[in-house]
Formats: sequence, structure tokens, C-alpha cells
Amino acid sequence: MNQPLYRRVQDELIKAILRDGAPAGTRLPSLRRLAKDLHVSRITVEAAYEQLQAQGLIEARARSGTFVTGHGVPPGRDEVDDGPQSLPWEARLAPGANPARERMLAQVFRSDRIQDTVSFAWGAGDPRLFPIDAFRVALNRVLRRAQGAALGPEDSRGNAELRASFAAYLRKLDIVASAESVMVTSGSQQAIDLVVSALVRPGDLVAVEDPSWPGALGALEAARADIRGVPLDGDGMRLDVLEELLGRGGVRLIYTVPTFHNPTGSVMPVGRRRELLRLAQRHGVPILEDDALREVRFGNPLPPPLAALDPSGNVICVGSFTKSILPAARLGYLVAPPKLRQWAIARKRSMDLFCSPLLQRAMADYLDSGEAVRHWKRISRAYALRQRAMAAALERHFPRGAHWEHTEGGPVMWVRLPDGVSARALFEQAVRARVSFAPGEAFFVAPADQPYIRLNFAALNAQEIERGIATLGAVLRAATVEEDLT
Amino acid sequence: MNQPLYRRVQDELIKAILRDGAPAGTRLPSLRRLAKDLHVSRITVEAAYEQLQAQGLIEARARSGTFVTGHGVPPGRDEVDDGPQSLPWEARLAPGANPARERMLAQVFRSDRIQDTVSFAWGAGDPRLFPIDAFRVALNRVLRRAQGAALGPEDSRGNAELRASFAAYLRKLDIVASAESVMVTSGSQQAIDLVVSALVRPGDLVAVEDPSWPGALGALEAARADIRGVPLDGDGMRLDVLEELLGRGGVRLIYTVPTFHNPTGSVMPVGRRRELLRLAQRHGVPILEDDALREVRFGNPLPPPLAALDPSGNVICVGSFTKSILPAARLGYLVAPPKLRQWAIARKRSMDLFCSPLLQRAMADYLDSGEAVRHWKRISRAYALRQRAMAAALERHFPRGAHWEHTEGGPVMWVRLPDGVSARALFEQAVRARVSFAPGEAFFVAPADQPYIRLNFAALNAQEIERGIATLGAVLRAATVEEDLT
Repeated sequence: MNQPLYRRVQDELIKAILRDGAPAGTRLPSLRRLAKDLHVSRITVEAAYEQLQAQGLIEARARSGTFVTGHGVPPGRDEVDDGPQSLPWEARLAPGANPARERMLAQVFRSDRIQDTVSFAWGAGDPRLFPIDAFRVALNRVLRRAQGAALGPEDSRGNAELRASFAAYLRKLDIVASAESVMVTSGSQQAIDLVVSALVRPGDLVAVEDPSWPGALGALEAARADIRGVPLDGDGMRLDVLEELLGRGGVRLIYTVPTFHNPTGSVMPVGRRRELLRLAQRHGVPILEDDALREVRFGNPLPPPLAALDPSGNVICVGSFTKSILPAARLGYLVAPPKLRQWAIARKRSMDLFCSPLLQRAMADYLDSGEAVRHWKRISRAYALRQRAMAAALERHFPRGAHWEHTEGGPVMWVRLPDGVSARALFEQAVRARVSFAPGEAFFVAPADQPYIRLNFAALNAQEIERGIATLGAVLRAATVEEDLT
Repeated sequence: MNQPLYRRVQDELIKAILRDGAPAGTRLPSLRRLAKDLHVSRITVEAAYEQLQAQGLIEARARSGTFVTGHGVPPGRDEVDDGPQSLPWEARLAPGANPARERMLAQVFRSDRIQDTVSFAWGAGDPRLFPIDAFRVALNRVLRRAQGAALGPEDSRGNAELRASFAAYLRKLDIVASAESVMVTSGSQQAIDLVVSALVRPGDLVAVEDPSWPGALGALEAARADIRGVPLDGDGMRLDVLEELLGRGGVRLIYTVPTFHNPTGSVMPVGRRRELLRLAQRHGVPILEDDALREVRFGNPLPPPLAALDPSGNVICVGSFTKSILPAARLGYLVAPPKLRQWAIARKRSMDLFCSPLLQRAMADYLDSGEAVRHWKRISRAYALRQRAMAAALERHFPRGAHWEHTEGGPVMWVRLPDGVSARALFEQAVRARVSFAPGEAFFVAPADQPYIRLNFAALNAQEIERGIATLGAVLRAATVEEDLT
């Protein structure tokens, strides 16, 4: 170990805070006490504390000591004690998302904030490649043009200009859409949550790919759905398994990401899409199609969305450009049958009234300028090269027994670890070596330690990828050797 | 009637679309047909259609005719028929908000869009007085400074800078708050919805002022609460009625707007606040305090928020600056006990992931610049004058038997109509005369025609107020005379 001593002390503390999930408000030992316990100098402990403070993991409070902050504290744990006269809050809370998944996601978010960490954990692209200037121009243009009107209240169904822009985009995909039939949502996540709230009652069966997008799993858990995972092969959701499930009856909704599935990256071919539509139609089950990643693609032309192939109008389609243009825009769309859409518009009114008209108008201005198409071409080229760099680095640094596949688009790769390696243990070791990623268990219907990890190749350049994968490979090889020895 | 003929035709059509709630997609008669039916020339009908099209109420579709658009269509009605293979969507939808209230709100939104309408319907201030330039400067400063980081993903609990700004604001009100204990939400509406989702199960009793804020009523209805309205007197919620209700047991939550109650404008004095806290504490019922209008005030110093007076930590406090600074910012705060807050953060992740970091950082930059305090002083002075203009206009133009009270802040006045006048009928007549307002029934727990209307005095200048109230007064006097004659 060539690391300075304070860095090792710091690592021990990070481990304790991250792995043991020390709740916010936990008081750390005094400098003197910790120095004594670890047999190091007070200056060493002080340097470690300073670093952790700079990273926001701990905070010093005048005259009372040093405490763990609440950044990303796992839910279900208490930050500070409730007061003596406090109500029994915990007993009154509705059931929420799966606590194991929430804890894992919180750890991942927290790991991302540790200084000098190379993070493969994101689901989005590289902020350095965001169209910052073009969006700033659009924002300023809208403010000059619309003045106060761009900053006042807006219709719960969305700004008319943006609905028209979204509809024009969807029509290019052969989806029947008009400014009247599209609803604007706060990202595709809100569209998913609205559809789930409308259609899923506690105990209802819902079929999803397993693994799947944690945001959708969270929305289904909030609605207390009985979630049934359907495994995937290289072509997406396995329809033999789905058919058996549908045959048993009672399924209320199918949620699917047929294009650049998150986390596996698979694309469902057109033949299977048609078969899925026939199956759903035969059993009278609506499909919720999540199409949030279509525009970042490296390979063959994509099959049409389910919504474009559907003759029955029973495919509900949600998507957004948050992952392919700007996460900060928080704008997605919902295309749904009229009654469901009306329900969603009324519910949005009681959820958050409306989406920011400023961001809506700026996004419409940006989309109408044609900049988006140029931007998608630019990032698709860049991310394709980065995926190659990632694959080459994995070849160089990962041990035998690890498996991965090239994807034809999207920002992530799904990697199977060698037999016997715990992704959870690898995550903890990697975070101490300043590398982060998304452990596979966050994506499964029943979160448990799974031998998978999801790596983002889009948010980092080739050098960063090489450096991060070299470190991760070293940690993984060490873990594999340990495994072989035991 | 000095109006041109086309204008009268237009009025008839608006009446049909608004009052009869013609669903979107309804086909209008052909020009020739309508001209014949109304005994006017085709040119007259054409002029009326053109006007309605410019107002977005109808649209011409090539080769198929002219149709009612979906702008603000009342929910529960169908826009276009579902396809022949369509699923029985309506039967599958979860119960939603009260359809009568939704229909009324949709009519109000739609009336606001009719050209040349003087609207007293808003709940917010005047877009011409929004701090547009200061906010644009803040936006551009944030984009220059943070670049991609301002546009990427953000923590579900909110941006750390904005949490710190909100906490600093709240501490000035003597509310115990830190950047760690505040959560950022998409306006106070989302904070209300999160708290209701966490604490209210179907059938749970919830006590609210009656009338109350329709957004809160909508969130409670979505949670299928058993809402119990508590009447107000000049000092806010009547505690004798509340006490009786609490005494019967089973109340899970009290929702209150003690400061500039919406719609009545009342302020609960400090004595009653303390009594309310004692009552809630004695019965073990949490209070959800909505404090969204505090900073627009004309009169005496305000009593402290309930959250500042509460020794038990059982007051949940929500608020925002959307009404007092920028509706488009869509940013509010939630101050809640730790377990409830953690629940809300996890639920927000499955609801809409996070609030836009661009708007969050710009709002933090704006608040930290001190501009907000100057802005509040400026608009408070302006709105105080406008309330005086409104009161003078009401004196001049409203018939005897109408009653109103000056408020000490906020953007609205609550007016009781003379006996026997229907607010619903008045609304329909007023819209045709190009004046809009919010009929009282939208604010009541059980929406029914009530002799109240809510008038916004903040969004219009003195001339506009005079013109609008003169017209409304004429319509009202006509209605009162009719009433006297029947």
C-alpha cells in the first residue's frame, strides 16, 4: 500500500459510513480518541476528517463534535431521533419502495460523491457533451420573446408548443400523435408513475422484464403491485414465460423497455414485438412501453416502437429526452388512450400542478431548431467510440469468467461477473479504490446479491474509462483470487 | 347590443362549448349549415369560426371539418372514441379527483384563454411584475458557473445549495431547519401530495378548512380520504367544530392554511394557533401546514407559522415561492420529521426522480442574492394598491347584498354574492361578457353551486380591474334584477 496514512484512515471511515450505513447524525469519535484507537497521530486523523468533510460525508458542528451528514442516508433509518412528544411516524407511513433496493441505490448515489471517484454508476450521458450553449440560447430566446408568459402557470396537460414538438417527433416514428393526444410529464418517470397509479390497485399482477428499470419497479412497489419478473434472452423479454403468466390470468399491465433495455441493452426484434402485441391483445392486457433511449444508437436501424405496430391502441407509450439531451429538463411525454390521458391530466393537477413552462418552451424551441438531431448524431458517434474503449479495457483488465455483450445503443453495458464473485462485496471494495458502478441487484424484482454489474461507458472519456476499468479489474482479480483460495 | 353579428355568433358557440362541455373532437356544423340555422350570412359564421380558432377553442382539419379542441376538456369525457379493439379503460381507472370540481376547474382554465378576457381567476400574481430579468441573470450565471453539472441528474431530496437557501429562509421564521432537514419538491403541491400519500389510506378521516385549496382537496381525493370540512370564521378554522370532530376519533391528518387562507384570505391569530397545536397534540393528530403566501402582505406583522410554535415536532410544513416569485420555477419545500421525510424522498424517486437542478440552482442563486426580499416589498406595495382599487370598484359596480372583506395579504378576495344569485350562472354569463373568475364551488369539500366567488386583484392593474369589475357588476346586477323579478 503506497497510500498516505490519512488516506487509509479515511478509507476505513468511508467503509464504516457506507457499508454499515451509519445514520446521519451519528457522532464520530473525537480526533484524540480515534488516533489512539487506530495507533496513528492526531494530525493523520485530522487530515482524514478534513477530506471527508470536503466530500460532504461528515460535518463539524461548533461545540458538539463531528457528525455523519444525511447525504444519501438509506431510507428507513433515522437521521436524528424524533422528539419525546413525537408521533409514531413509522407505524403510520404507507408501504413504500423495496427497502433493500432503496438502500443499495442510496449507497450508489453516495459513492458517486466521494472525491476523485471514477463513476460508472450513472444511467445518463456525459455532462461535458450536453448541448449547454444551444439550450442556453433557447432559454434566453424564450425569455425575451414570451417574457412573463413563459414564467406563469401552465396547463396541466403541458405547453401547447412542446406538445406539438413531441407529436411531430412521435409521428416520425409512425406513432399516431397530435398536440391534442400528447401529455407532457416531468420526465418519463412521472409518466410511468401516472399510468401505474391509474391502472394498478394493491395486489394487482404486473409483468416486467427481470432485471428492469429501478424507477419503474419503485413506482409499482409504491402502488403495491404484485410484480412478476419475466427473464430476458438476447432478444428481450421471453414470451414463452410471459405467455404462461398471462395464461394464469389476473395480469393488469405489462411494463417493457423493448429498445435498449435498461440495464441489459437488448433490443427486441420486430417479429417478437408483433408476437408480444398479439399476446397482450389476446389476453386483454395493456402494455406500457418505455422508450427513453432510442436516440443514442450505434448500429442497425431500430425496429418501430410497439406503439407504432399496435393496431388496437392498447399500447401506452412513455418517453423523454432527459437521457439523450438534458437530464435537467425533466420533460417527458405520455401517449395514452383518451380516458386514461384525461385521468392522468387530472391526477397531475393534484400531484404537482404543471411542468415549468420556461423549460417546456425552451425544450420546444430547441427541438424545433433541429439542433436535437445534430446533437443525437454527435453523441451517438462519441458514445460508440467509448463503448469500444470500454470493451477493450474490459478485455485487458477483467479476469476470465467475466462476460459482456456489445450493445447497439444506450449508455450502459451489463457485465456478468465470474462465478462466485459477490457484486455487493466488489462494490464496497471498488468504492474504497475510488471506482463506482451500479450493482446488479438494484435492477431485480427481488433484490439480492446477483453476479451482475451495470457499467456506464457514455459519461466518461477513453482515458477515464481505461483508468477506472484498470482499477476495477485489479479489485475484481483480487476478489477472484481470494475466492479461488477459499 | 352594439356587438357585431359575428361576435354574437361566436358567443353562442363559446356558450355551447363551455357550458355544455362539448368534448374535444366534437365536429362543428359546416359554415353553410350554421349560417342557415342562425339566419346569418356565411361570412358572419366564418368570422366567428376564425376568432374561435385564433383562441384555440376549435381547429380546422383538412378535408374533415372543424372540431372542438381538447384545451381544458372536462375530465371523464371522451375526446375521441376509443378504437373498436380498445380495452374498457374507464372501468380500469382508479377513482380520481371529484369530477364536479374537475369540470369546474377545466371550465375556468378554458375561459381564461378566450381572447380579450379580463381574468380574475388566477391564484398567482402579475406576470408583468415577475422578476424576469433577475431570474434570467441567475439562470445564465448558473449555466456559466456550473456548466454541465447544472444540467445533469440531481439528488431526489434536492440540490444542496437550494436546501441551504430554503433552510436559511425558514430559520428566519423560527422554524428549526437545516439543509439536511429540508426536502425540495416540485412546488408545495407535490409536498402536499407526498405527505398525503405517506399518511392517508383509503377511508381515513382528514380535517380541512371548508372552503380550502382545491389542489389539496384533489390530492386527498386521489388518496381516497374521507374529507371532513371544518368551517372558518374571520380568524380561520373554527376550533370548536374541529374539537368535536377530533373527539369522535379516527382523524389521521389536519390540513390547514393558517396564513392568508386560500380562498378566504383569513389569518389565524397566534392564540388560536397555540390552541390548534394543543388540540392536535392531545389527539395525536399531525398537522400539515401550508404556508405558500406569507411573503405578499400589506398589513400587520404576521403571527409565526404553526411549525415555529410547535414544541412536539408534529407539524409538517410545506411552502413555496411559486406564487410570490415565479410560478414557472415549480420549487417548494417540505419540512417533516425524519422518517416521513425519508419516505417522501424515496417516493419522489419513483414519482419524478428529481427537480430540475438548473431551476434549483437558479432559485438558490436568486434567493441568496437578496433580490427576493426587495421583490416581495415591491409586489406587496403594488398588490396592496390593487386591492384598494378592487374594493373601490366593487363598491361602485356591485349591487347591495354583495359582501367582501379586505385581506392583509395574498392575491385574492372572497366575495359573497347577494342572496339567490347562482355563482355558476354568473360565471357562464360573465365569460360571455369576457370576464372570468373562480366560482366558489371549486373550493368546497362537496362542490355545489355556492353564493361565493374568488377574485384575484394581483394579476391586473387598476384600469383592468375597473374595467373587469364594471362588466362583472353589470352582469351581476342584471342577474339580481332577474332574480328579483322571478
